[in-house]
Amino acid sequence: MEGDAPIKVYMTRKLIGVSPDDSVKRACEIMVEFDIGSLVVVEEDKVVGFFTKSDIIRRVVIPGLPNTTPVREIMSKELITVDANTPLRGVLDLMAKKGVKHMLIEENGEIVGIFSLSDLLTASRRRLETAIAAE
Amino acid sequence: MEGDAPIKVYMTRKLIGVSPDDSVKRACEIMVEFDIGSLVVVEEDKVVGFFTKSDIIRRVVIPGLPNTTPVREIMSKELITVDANTPLRGVLDLMAKKGVKHMLIEENGEIVGIFSLSDLLTASRRRLETAIAAE
Repeated sequence: MEGDAPIKVYMTRKLIGVSPDDSVKRACEIMVEFDIGSLVVVEEDKVVGFFTKSDIIRRVVIPGLPNTTPVREIMSKELITVDANTPLRGVLDLMAKKGVKHMLIEENGEIVGIFSLSDLLTASRRRLETAIAAE
Repeated sequence: MEGDAPIKVYMTRKLIGVSPDDSVKRACEIMVEFDIGSLVVVEEDKVVGFFTKSDIIRRVVIPGLPNTTPVREIMSKELITVDANTPLRGVLDLMAKKGVKHMLIEENGEIVGIFSLSDLLTASRRRLETAIAAE
């Protein structure tokens, strides 16, 4: 795990999306199926929103909304992104500062991937393996 | 971040707990307040259960249970723990293998802390800072 390497080396390129009209229940089923903690919301091939399991806890479970609530009502419309060439170190600093566990990655004005703490787990294990191999 | 260092160096010692009779809503409010993704369930000074945001998604939101459901009905009663002297590397391997983001840490038969991917973020940033300082 090199702090200077760009985040695009570590991010996940496969973005899993739902429609704004999908229910919270459907979105949760997809999160469980793919074992992911966040989803992008896609409308006409454009990312129009984003939400995490934390958003569901905060905006659905606590206020007691039904699981039939459409995703558009609970998604974040303001997307926080970082450029794909940002060094890993900078992305980790930003995540710690903002207290987020997922970061959308942008390249040439388009969202091309996501970096989550699960990707950090993968990167850390790879680094530790490399360290053993070098011993 | 040294792969050989014991997990107790990196874990969080402060465990935040709820009672088995607390509602899911109350538990979620505590998770939001402390910005954590899991809670231990404590009864008569003993940890009797554990659950994460993922468990709430899976066991409350998807089946459509009310947020008044008591925590005892959705908690995991089988606690997965690792010994406090397990090397970081071993804990990361176990988390990746089990697909979990939190691991309870045990010392002399007692749960003494928790290690989450947020703790890994802290550890990684510390390591990267040290790497810069050493340049």
